[in-house]
Amino acid sequence: MKSKQFVVIGLGKFGQSVAKTLFQMGYDVLAVDDDETIVQEISDQVTHAVQMDATDEYALRTLGIRNFDVAVVSIGSNIQSSIMVTLNLKEAGVKKVIAKGNNEMHAKLLSKIGADKVIQPEMDMGIRVAHNLVSSSILDFIELSPDYSIIEVATPREWVGKDIAALDARAKYGINIMAIKSQDNINVSPRATDVIQESDVLVVIGATSDLSTLEALTANE
Amino acid sequence: MKSKQFVVIGLGKFGQSVAKTLFQMGYDVLAVDDDETIVQEISDQVTHAVQMDATDEYALRTLGIRNFDVAVVSIGSNIQSSIMVTLNLKEAGVKKVIAKGNNEMHAKLLSKIGADKVIQPEMDMGIRVAHNLVSSSILDFIELSPDYSIIEVATPREWVGKDIAALDARAKYGINIMAIKSQDNINVSPRATDVIQESDVLVVIGATSDLSTLEALTANE
Ligand SMILES: Nc1ncnc2c1ncn2[C@@H]1O[C@H](COP(=O)(O)OP(=O)(O)OP(=O)(O)O)[C@@H](O)[C@H]1O
Ligand SMILES: Nc1ncnc2c1ncn2[C@@H]1O[C@H](COP(=O)(O)OP(=O)(O)OP(=O)(O)O)[C@@H](O)[C@H]1O
Ligand SMILES: [Ca+2]
Ligand SMILES: [Ca+2]
Ligand SMILES: [Ca+2]
Ligand SMILES: [Ca+2]
Repeated sequence: MKSKQFVVIGLGKFGQSVAKTLFQMGYDVLAVDDDETIVQEISDQVTHAVQMDATDEYALRTLGIRNFDVAVVSIGSNIQSSIMVTLNLKEAGVKKVIAKGNNEMHAKLLSKIGADKVIQPEMDMGIRVAHNLVSSSILDFIELSPDYSIIEVATPREWVGKDIAALDARAKYGINIMAIKSQDNINVSPRATDVIQESDVLVVIGATSDLSTLEALTANE
Repeated sequence: MKSKQFVVIGLGKFGQSVAKTLFQMGYDVLAVDDDETIVQEISDQVTHAVQMDATDEYALRTLGIRNFDVAVVSIGSNIQSSIMVTLNLKEAGVKKVIAKGNNEMHAKLLSKIGADKVIQPEMDMGIRVAHNLVSSSILDFIELSPDYSIIEVATPREWVGKDIAALDARAKYGINIMAIKSQDNINVSPRATDVIQESDVLVVIGATSDLSTLEALTANE
């Protein structure tokens, strides 16, 4: 089966990041920008890069735009262009259009005219960061269910120098250490004899209540 | 135990989002910006809002800055100010400083001078969005390093009915299955004989390239 085809229109920080990441993951990415220099810079990090004013409906159709599965519109500062391009893509029949909004009003407009998902990168990231910050030692997390999570956490001081067997985290804390991140290495299958270093970051899975105990252990250090 | 005290310096889109979210979660937030209008606008959505040039080391100390547990520096466009403020906060003894970087170079500088975590909201969000776009099967993920991630993923159809031993995910796909989420249960230490069900969600750790293969497996279902 044919893999998904992506087009990213507007290659600012957000658009470039989406385009490069998709391409690194092995997908076909067409990258479009008005600015010739930007197009040249990104050209070897995507499948194709094209200089084009995307508000030009005719040029957009010439690209065969309706054959793309997903379009990302990441024109932030020119709200009118962003709206026009989004409209044209939906009218051309692109199934999924993701658009970047620069503020609440812009985001609402994009939703109204048919964007399937609207991202406000700085606002959305601010919310994530705030959630991650609430516990000092938690660097990142996935909430698997209301009761279970995976957290990335700094090593509690009293664990430093112990090996996995001595720690006995499962029995003592009800948690599993799934990975150990050291300076330039990630150990994804910790053994009984692996010793935990002060600068290590631990990836831990467990019940929320047990993870809170672990957080408390590191919070006041 | 006293709950954490947060200070957010620079109230652009990212800083405002962090400050408001923390305050909504019930935390004390001091919001600082150079711009009087911005300070007035945010004043009833945080604990305290103060107009101040945060590069003024003396003024910063007068605020009792070292008593804060976490500081967020979200001055993006003025790199010099962002660096100065971050340095001053670390020197004043703030335990955890999160700083917003505007580009790679800025981000590297912030790390070098002691920022505990550097966020590039548009780039980081671009990576998140790309991962989410590639397949509706990716439910969440943690990027452990540029090369390693943990993902929460729907079960690929061809894995249904197999047990962990038969799957041999480590050898065949270079990944480790760390947990299996079924309807009302999470199995955090899968055994060789555990059989994967269609409705299961898998929590998987591995190199980004290997995870992409897994993503591709589920992407077109
Ligand atoms: N009509 C257009 N057609 C194609 N590309 C466009 C169009 N208008 C703007 N762009 C491009 O979109 C990119 C991002 O737009 P803009 O700079 O307005 O967004 P931004 O939100 O400021 O992005 P960033 O903060 O990441 O730089 C720019 O590289 C710009 O050249
Ligand atoms: N020295 C300073 N002290 C306090 N606040 C400052 C200082 N310098 C800049 N700021 C404030 O930081 C905020 C964000 O800064 P800036 O606009 O440079 O970042 P930005 O990355 O463009 O943010 P956004 O894109 O979210 O608007 C602004 O409201 C600005 O007034
Ligand atoms: Ca720009
Ligand atoms: Ca921007
Ligand atoms: Ca700004
Ligand atoms: Ca910005």
